[in-house]
Amino acid sequence: MKEPISLIVTMDLFVNLPATQKGSHMSRNLELVTEIIDENITNPVRDLETFCAKTAKLLLKKHEYATQSEIRAEADYFFERTYPSGSKGLEPYKLVAEARAKNNGEIKKLIGIKAIGMTSCPCAMEIIRTIGKYDNDDIPPSHNQRNITTVMLEVPSDTSSVDANDLIIIAEQAFSSPTYSILKRREEGQLVYNAHKNPKFVEDVVRDILSAIVKKYHHLPDDTLVIVRSESEESIHKHNAFAERVTLLGELKV
Amino acid sequence: MKEPISLIVTMDLFVNLPATQKGSHMSRNLELVTEIIDENITNPVRDLETFCAKTAKLLLKKHEYATQSEIRAEADYFFERTYPSGSKGLEPYKLVAEARAKNNGEIKKLIGIKAIGMTSCPCAMEIIRTIGKYDNDDIPPSHNQRNITTVMLEVPSDTSSVDANDLIIIAEQAFSSPTYSILKRREEGQLVYNAHKNPKFVEDVVRDILSAIVKKYHHLPDDTLVIVRSESEESIHKHNAFAERVTLLGELKV
Amino acid sequence: MKEPISLIVTMDLFVNLPATQKGSHMSRNLELVTEIIDENITNPVRDLETFCAKTAKLLLKKHEYATQSEIRAEADYFFERTYPSGSKGLEPYKLVAEARAKNNGEIKKLIGIKAIGMTSCPCAMEIIRTIGKYDNDDIPPSHNQRNITTVMLEVPSDTSSVDANDLIIIAEQAFSSPTYSILKRREEGQLVYNAHKNPKFVEDVVRDILSAIVKKYHHLPDDTLVIVRSESEESIHKHNAFAERVTLLGELKV
Amino acid sequence: MKEPISLIVTMDLFVNLPATQKGSHMSRNLELVTEIIDENITNPVRDLETFCAKTAKLLLKKHEYATQSEIRAEADYFFERTYPSGSKGLEPYKLVAEARAKNNGEIKKLIGIKAIGMTSCPCAMEIIRTIGKYDNDDIPPSHNQRNITTVMLEVPSDTSSVDANDLIIIAEQAFSSPTYSILKRREEGQLVYNAHKNPKFVEDVVRDILSAIVKKYHHLPDDTLVIVRSESEESIHKHNAFAERVTLLGELKV
Repeated sequence: MKEPISLIVTMDLFVNLPATQKGSHMSRNLELVTEIIDENITNPVRDLETFCAKTAKLLLKKHEYATQSEIRAEADYFFERTYPSGSKGLEPYKLVAEARAKNNGEIKKLIGIKAIGMTSCPCAMEIIRTIGKYDNDDIPPSHNQRNITTVMLEVPSDTSSVDANDLIIIAEQAFSSPTYSILKRREEGQLVYNAHKNPKFVEDVVRDILSAIVKKYHHLPDDTLVIVRSESEESIHKHNAFAERVTLLGELKV
Repeated sequence: MKEPISLIVTMDLFVNLPATQKGSHMSRNLELVTEIIDENITNPVRDLETFCAKTAKLLLKKHEYATQSEIRAEADYFFERTYPSGSKGLEPYKLVAEARAKNNGEIKKLIGIKAIGMTSCPCAMEIIRTIGKYDNDDIPPSHNQRNITTVMLEVPSDTSSVDANDLIIIAEQAFSSPTYSILKRREEGQLVYNAHKNPKFVEDVVRDILSAIVKKYHHLPDDTLVIVRSESEESIHKHNAFAERVTLLGELKV
Repeated sequence: MKEPISLIVTMDLFVNLPATQKGSHMSRNLELVTEIIDENITNPVRDLETFCAKTAKLLLKKHEYATQSEIRAEADYFFERTYPSGSKGLEPYKLVAEARAKNNGEIKKLIGIKAIGMTSCPCAMEIIRTIGKYDNDDIPPSHNQRNITTVMLEVPSDTSSVDANDLIIIAEQAFSSPTYSILKRREEGQLVYNAHKNPKFVEDVVRDILSAIVKKYHHLPDDTLVIVRSESEESIHKHNAFAERVTLLGELKV
Repeated sequence: MKEPISLIVTMDLFVNLPATQKGSHMSRNLELVTEIIDENITNPVRDLETFCAKTAKLLLKKHEYATQSEIRAEADYFFERTYPSGSKGLEPYKLVAEARAKNNGEIKKLIGIKAIGMTSCPCAMEIIRTIGKYDNDDIPPSHNQRNITTVMLEVPSDTSSVDANDLIIIAEQAFSSPTYSILKRREEGQLVYNAHKNPKFVEDVVRDILSAIVKKYHHLPDDTLVIVRSESEESIHKHNAFAERVTLLGELKV
């Protein structure tokens, strides 16, 4: 049994409104969140998506005129990673979760993460190889940049089979390289060198995450929602490069 | 005589308040800006810092209880650059200006720019050279990133000797490379290659801009205020690298 | 024939990517935008949504492997309003547009605006009436706040029947009161007083805009997409109140 | 002895650089922060400003070429407040701290907070009283809005005499009214009514905080730095109202 983690969560809460109702009783949302938080002090919730799902269900009880509710949550999150030096440290991420409830009892929940890593461009590298006359086993320079990637996965209601930490690992393996807060000079050089041996378009990051997801979560139902977004703050451009796929797990299994 | 340029300007307007005055008559600020803009439709102002200086002086007239006023302005700005292909195009920048007026007639005005370029890290490159066993005339990879640099220079009240376009040129020459919106694949490769032949720390960018300023504006008085800030959105880190110097031109002439 | 307006536009450009294609040729997007802008210098485009639709279609030509494209655009926009004093002035808004094209020739375009106004809360006012023992014809205080509202409407491809200025007028009539940059003290008091005679929930703002849209655009097809979002930066809360409806015009005609 | 609180802190770390030094050894900053955090796990630091001061001193040790260092820190912070209903709950704030160290041993540290409250405008209210013909003991409406106020105070190095919670209390007493997450409808009405009995310009908020500070911290030295900033997101305007005073405690004692 692990020790509970405290999260500072920013939340959006929605209910639908029938035509006959002038406005929603907005104060009930805050009351509800407070009740749930108070309860969690003695009885911590298992994960952020369960917290969202619970809140979405209770929202429908509090707003008896509503037939649908929706919750979105985001929190700073720290996860222990092993640095190139072998020592360990906490790296910063965002934890994101969503839940949608209907008054017929239907509930949908998603868990996800946002991770920062590095991408190095395959296209510029190929051209620079010809400009600079590099040996075949030399790695030429390329432009590389900070990339922010979001991975979200639907979680079956009766299971805890998706661990947000696994989504972080999947995202970091899809970058040209993950990045770390603590790097000695030599480790920094090695990391950048390795990133250039593994150049990636923003489209590759999304594609490789989707492949890893279908492999790891093959047992989940075909209608499991999968969302992957990757944005590179291109060093060569004043604008960003962006790729996204929103799909169902079944589409990826083909 | 050039054609006038329209700018969309975001402004901050300040006056000081004597102890005897409960609040400032804030509505006068907007009235004033409107009057100046109306006047400028038929009689365009020479530059953004002159517009700020004029506004700062008139603010003191409108707020007769104030002894000091201050204006800050920022606008999107486009400047024609020659691309590596030889063709020309507009690149995006920010134009910034400030003015401070006192009721003894003293006035101080600054003009500046924000430019985006690329920096490539000298330190990582040096290490990668040893990791990858590159020939001496080969350029190894390094981490590189988007850099945002601000240059501001005080402008003597009786002169128009500082042209914001020159500050853009100075900033772009201090990056490892400027960046351009329109690049064919080969030009993109060449630009990245050149940037790696010219690696720069964020501290180097600030230092090289200061050198260029003291060279170009040697004739300006020693008490001319100079502000240079450079921030790199490091691809190897989740945090940014930042360097700044706020100084007087006289300090740089030594 | 009106004089052309220059806009500074921030754009997102998307194409879909077949499984067989590693990455999109991103540089073509910028080339395309430049070509369209160059052409528009001599031949200005009619409106922002037409510019987006044209760009979306040409994107599909440039990316011959793509079957769908999407464009989103946002620009600062100024529209002349009559102030309570009777004088006229420009007020600031955002102009937004979207277009989606398919390689079967299908094209969808939307035009919209973002406007800032004031909402005054009906619920708190009702309670304060009982707390303060006001006469029946007295207007009690209530909390009021800055509200940001977005209105977007699909535009039939063969028509110019939707003018963004009309959407601004519709949004401003749905607030408790529009706000103005230039107000004399008495006009400011009158505006706030009028806003309290017309209290509105964020839900009311959305509802009243939908009513005005169905009235003004009754002739448009039933499958015209309508998007209305309203967000109040509540003075009484540290969080915002938000209402949204995304629907088809046909749903509103009932 | 209180239980330790965990904070998620965003930090800026600066050292000055001699002319002879090409760049700072930036990686040492992260190493240092990690070391301090590791140490604090077993031995929690007393407060955020002490953490900053300690870090500023150690930065100078790590960067032996630097003669000055500076740290800025900001964290989400929750403080228990008593609601109008008598129940208690946590309200959200920001905790801010700064420290500057010199290699002659001199150290300066500041602690501060950012709080959100409501301001109601005295000027509009006065005019509306004449427009609406209110009885003398009736409170007319006025525009009111969300206000964000920052209070920072220098802390003598040998003392813990400034508690950030007291600065929150001082800021909240200077608003027309503090705001609370949990309010029943009647309490919300009462709070808004009370805010209108206590109308405040943004200048009043700053002034009243300065008065409270000089009263509570009269024993601190005359050269204690005091910073107060207040910004109102005006409901009647599309722009904000802003007031600031940066001064020494001695100036306020007069």
